[in-house]
Amino acid sequence: MQTIDFWFDFASPYSYLAAMRVEKLATEAGVSLRWRAFLLGAIFKSHGLDNTPMLKHPHKANYMWRDMQRLCADIELVWQQPSEFPRNGLIAARIACWYEQASWLPEFVRQVYCANFQQDKDIADTTVLAHLLIGLGLDPQQILTNAQSQDAKDKLRQSTEEAMQSGVFGAPFFIAAEEPFWGQDRLEHAVAWCQARRR
Amino acid sequence: MQTIDFWFDFASPYSYLAAMRVEKLATEAGVSLRWRAFLLGAIFKSHGLDNTPMLKHPHKANYMWRDMQRLCADIELVWQQPSEFPRNGLIAARIACWYEQASWLPEFVRQVYCANFQQDKDIADTTVLAHLLIGLGLDPQQILTNAQSQDAKDKLRQSTEEAMQSGVFGAPFFIAAEEPFWGQDRLEHAVAWCQARRR
Repeated sequence: MQTIDFWFDFASPYSYLAAMRVEKLATEAGVSLRWRAFLLGAIFKSHGLDNTPMLKHPHKANYMWRDMQRLCADIELVWQQPSEFPRNGLIAARIACWYEQASWLPEFVRQVYCANFQQDKDIADTTVLAHLLIGLGLDPQQILTNAQSQDAKDKLRQSTEEAMQSGVFGAPFFIAAEEPFWGQDRLEHAVAWCQARRR
Repeated sequence: MQTIDFWFDFASPYSYLAAMRVEKLATEAGVSLRWRAFLLGAIFKSHGLDNTPMLKHPHKANYMWRDMQRLCADIELVWQQPSEFPRNGLIAARIACWYEQASWLPEFVRQVYCANFQQDKDIADTTVLAHLLIGLGLDPQQILTNAQSQDAKDKLRQSTEEAMQSGVFGAPFFIAAEEPFWGQDRLEHAVAWCQARRR
């Protein structure tokens, strides 16, 4: 089975679209999926860019919000432009990275995106994250403590470094059987790439 | 009939893909098409960006070339990475802008793109452009002289200004019944947008 590495950043609107779509597409195509949280801001910084290149010019920013509204309407996905952007996804990313293998992880990722882009909730707030974890039948205190351990911090740093080394420069980003695809609108291409190369 | 304004820059690889596809899609959909040459570099400059944001980082540049190769292969379109990038499309753009209404214009535009991205020819060279015009049964001296007149220079400057005012910040860019779509992979969306709003 070929694998797609799905690199996502919790602040990224286009990653929200990808996160809501990727599992179904991968499953239907018989492609294995790895959920890879990382911090896009750290990569932007290493490239000498600030945290929000899409906000640099009002035309570009307006376009992104309009485009998100259209793309979500197309697939009947709820969309609300967040009142704060970009939101700080650091703790959520540490949880997603540390618990990468957990069976509840995909649903947790989707719920964090929904909190940010459907309910306009502050995903930097541990109360918001704890609430989501409780809803999944999990122990929020244990998970938040583990995710803030030095090992978990290091793991997210290493993942972000791995993303950078693998050529990731935006989000979402798919590495499909070593082939890079940038952007949520390339998700189908990434899946098809793997499918065509199934051993 | 609804209209798509197709904004293109001759140096832009993704505009090449759009230029080769747009007419067929618009015709099939019963959507009217305007070929709008402009200078993306002038807009980048006004946004404080240099001429080639995609070349800023090697990962991004490598991605773009790889992506172009893949996308062209997908639709069986010849692709050769130009030995010089970005090429200076100023004169070609002045021709395309001045002769926007000419029946030969779409074919001229496609041939300039093919010269740049299939044959690795220097589209800044008037000999190359003259050769293309002769191939179309036209008088290259007259066209080149007209396209370098002050009126033609002003017209391209005004078109670029219009693009900027309309929110164009990249290429290709489609304005479909006043709705903006950025990127060659949004061409189908732009056409569908017009089609759904046909009067």
